[in-house]
Amino acid sequence: MNTSGPPREGVSSGPGSNGRPLRVGVLGCGNVGAALVGLLTDDSSTITARTGVALEVAKIGVRNLSASRAVQVSAELFTRDTQAMVNDPNIDIIVETIGGIEPARALLLTALKNGKPVITANKELIANCGAELFETAATAGVDLFFEAAVAGGIPVMRALQQSLAGEQITRIMGIVNGTTNFILTKMTEEGAAYADVLTEAQQLGYAEADPTADVEGFDAGAKAAIIASVAFGLNVVAGDVYQEGISRITPSDIAAAARLDHVIKLLAIIERHGDEVAVRVHPAMVPNTHPLATVRDSFNAVFIHGEAVDDLMLYGRGAGGAPTASAMLGDVLSAASNLRRGSASDPIQLKPAKVMAIDQTSSAFYLALDVADHSGVLAEVAAVFGAYDVSIRSMEQHGVGDRARITFITHRALEADVQATLSGLSNLGAVHNVGAVIRVVSE
Amino acid sequence: MNTSGPPREGVSSGPGSNGRPLRVGVLGCGNVGAALVGLLTDDSSTITARTGVALEVAKIGVRNLSASRAVQVSAELFTRDTQAMVNDPNIDIIVETIGGIEPARALLLTALKNGKPVITANKELIANCGAELFETAATAGVDLFFEAAVAGGIPVMRALQQSLAGEQITRIMGIVNGTTNFILTKMTEEGAAYADVLTEAQQLGYAEADPTADVEGFDAGAKAAIIASVAFGLNVVAGDVYQEGISRITPSDIAAAARLDHVIKLLAIIERHGDEVAVRVHPAMVPNTHPLATVRDSFNAVFIHGEAVDDLMLYGRGAGGAPTASAMLGDVLSAASNLRRGSASDPIQLKPAKVMAIDQTSSAFYLALDVADHSGVLAEVAAVFGAYDVSIRSMEQHGVGDRARITFITHRALEADVQATLSGLSNLGAVHNVGAVIRVVSE
Repeated sequence: MNTSGPPREGVSSGPGSNGRPLRVGVLGCGNVGAALVGLLTDDSSTITARTGVALEVAKIGVRNLSASRAVQVSAELFTRDTQAMVNDPNIDIIVETIGGIEPARALLLTALKNGKPVITANKELIANCGAELFETAATAGVDLFFEAAVAGGIPVMRALQQSLAGEQITRIMGIVNGTTNFILTKMTEEGAAYADVLTEAQQLGYAEADPTADVEGFDAGAKAAIIASVAFGLNVVAGDVYQEGISRITPSDIAAAARLDHVIKLLAIIERHGDEVAVRVHPAMVPNTHPLATVRDSFNAVFIHGEAVDDLMLYGRGAGGAPTASAMLGDVLSAASNLRRGSASDPIQLKPAKVMAIDQTSSAFYLALDVADHSGVLAEVAAVFGAYDVSIRSMEQHGVGDRARITFITHRALEADVQATLSGLSNLGAVHNVGAVIRVVSE
Repeated sequence: MNTSGPPREGVSSGPGSNGRPLRVGVLGCGNVGAALVGLLTDDSSTITARTGVALEVAKIGVRNLSASRAVQVSAELFTRDTQAMVNDPNIDIIVETIGGIEPARALLLTALKNGKPVITANKELIANCGAELFETAATAGVDLFFEAAVAGGIPVMRALQQSLAGEQITRIMGIVNGTTNFILTKMTEEGAAYADVLTEAQQLGYAEADPTADVEGFDAGAKAAIIASVAFGLNVVAGDVYQEGISRITPSDIAAAARLDHVIKLLAIIERHGDEVAVRVHPAMVPNTHPLATVRDSFNAVFIHGEAVDDLMLYGRGAGGAPTASAMLGDVLSAASNLRRGSASDPIQLKPAKVMAIDQTSSAFYLALDVADHSGVLAEVAAVFGAYDVSIRSMEQHGVGDRARITFITHRALEADVQATLSGLSNLGAVHNVGAVIRVVSE
């Protein structure tokens, strides 16, 4: 390779460097695929004017040729033969919007081995098979970009990989699922019950008919695994992530949070502790003054704390055809720019991860207990906290007839100790019920 | 250039590819320079472990060799001969933290012509001489990165250049000056007067002894010019930016905003209108529900609206040694990665900008008038608005003895029409005083 001259002059041997457009093969033509095809066709001349890159849609791989599509392109572009697309020497770049593991995995491995840069929005695939794909891309020396797989239109991956490449990141907290954030926002602002808001979200198309993947935290868990892998260069997969969803959050939990100037959010939390990484998804009370508390409706945000950069938050649309396609277009243009130079971005190299068990993580907790309202109860309860080294930051007691409700916020404590405290408390005769147990984001 | 094999194999002819560390020359050793030298020395082994890039500080250019420094490095690294640094074949990358136009401009032009990638945090230089520097970098085929010049540790430049490369951006609104945001936050949360908070900010080191550049909007104006240039590929310079500062904002303006569920922020606003660009800095009322309203203290944020990506906001530390150095380190690592491949990022190419005159921009406005409290006044006032086609969105009137205060929020109106309305109003006998005139961010 000639490096004696200016690198950007005379590097015109790559595809797209001779004036012919780079040909993009789009796998899948659902919501995101159609939006991307729309951008690549409708905005083609403005993209070229702005970036100097000419792109054209070469083929669109679909399962059903007769389905009606939200795009205005020649019927000849559609094909069912996706295998032929990833082997076609006339296709320069592959964009995948199919979702799911197979056949996406096999198609993308073939594309990479054939030297085609791959852009994907497939969180499930990256969260489960990332290491295999990254290694294949590295060996082939081609780009594999997946900005759209986490938090849609928000440039989180690029920030972690490039801007923060030298940063010692200690913690990342993300609102990375728009459906659950929409539901929690409605519950907070309208006092509505979970089931009612879920129904509304389903009617609006924000939630699936089977909402499990969203509301039980699986979607956020996959994204947490990807964030952890990219932020720390560790091979964290979806199955490594501890998950609790929002289906058990009640209006009274929301109201309790509000009384304490907090809101409840479903957070993906990724922390580095020495050579271990803790990755979990659960509802948490967030102080109203925290930037994550202000992320409403179906918006997403990722809050990053690093030793030098301090606090950083990236906020935007985490889903939807157009925002996701925008992120993919940014990736396509980066890959195109590298292709023209016959180059590629630094590959992601993952080391084996030591994932911390949830028991060993620590959080502050909000706890609500229903107890008998007689003397000595508080002392008994406090003794249980003390026995497990869980220290109490604040406490409130309200009488309710012959019972009382005591609410606690603990200092940061080991999850195992808090769970032991909860068992201990539920064994006390004076404790009628251990109500809400919600982790709290502390500074 | 050989592009037949995998590009990342066998590209080992660039500096840093043979195992020797890349040698970084740091110009300036103030707050930011010292923080960067600290990261490059203290975190050297972790940076190498994470990125595969070995970096070492080759020289630190300073004016005064005997000044005490906040860094623990060998005294031999310091030199007054900055000219020799940019000509030294043993220095691979130049990092500039001197600030101001000369000698920074001359030094960086020489470094670029000598094929050395340049990383700078110098907003004044980029906002005034960006086109010349970008062209020199493009001709030499080397990287020129300046992430830290706008909004410190927040990866705004990279987002605009890469992630949003294909996006049709319509508007960018930024809180890009931490000093004024600190002052406005204190005024809002504590009801304090501007002069008192300014004094406090000066004591805390958030404001300079001569605060003009911050409080009158010059600093934000330079950053607005850079954002406009990068977002739209247009040569917008500091002098193109219309500026109003915060020194005339009173506690009663802040209180009026609060009554309307708004907060006052100093915003840099960059809009694309056809082939024209509007770039301005002024205080504005921001609705409490807008993400920019929640940016408190000295934090910065940049809110971007694009046709596909919708709303996006990047939030973080806009100044300070460590956050700024973190952004510069990200740039250094990108340049190092390109150097090893004998490559460089796509150059920035600026076209001449048509900058819209402030008269031709439009905003919603908040206006407060003190008027005589007798019949017919409101009709007279309303007639003036009507004469200039400024339509009123909402109005409130409060009696104050024999006078009344009327406050208006207008719909979006042409600046020229609003200014004509204001002249017309102040000519009315019944109008004793045209009080606050503050632009309002509407959806």
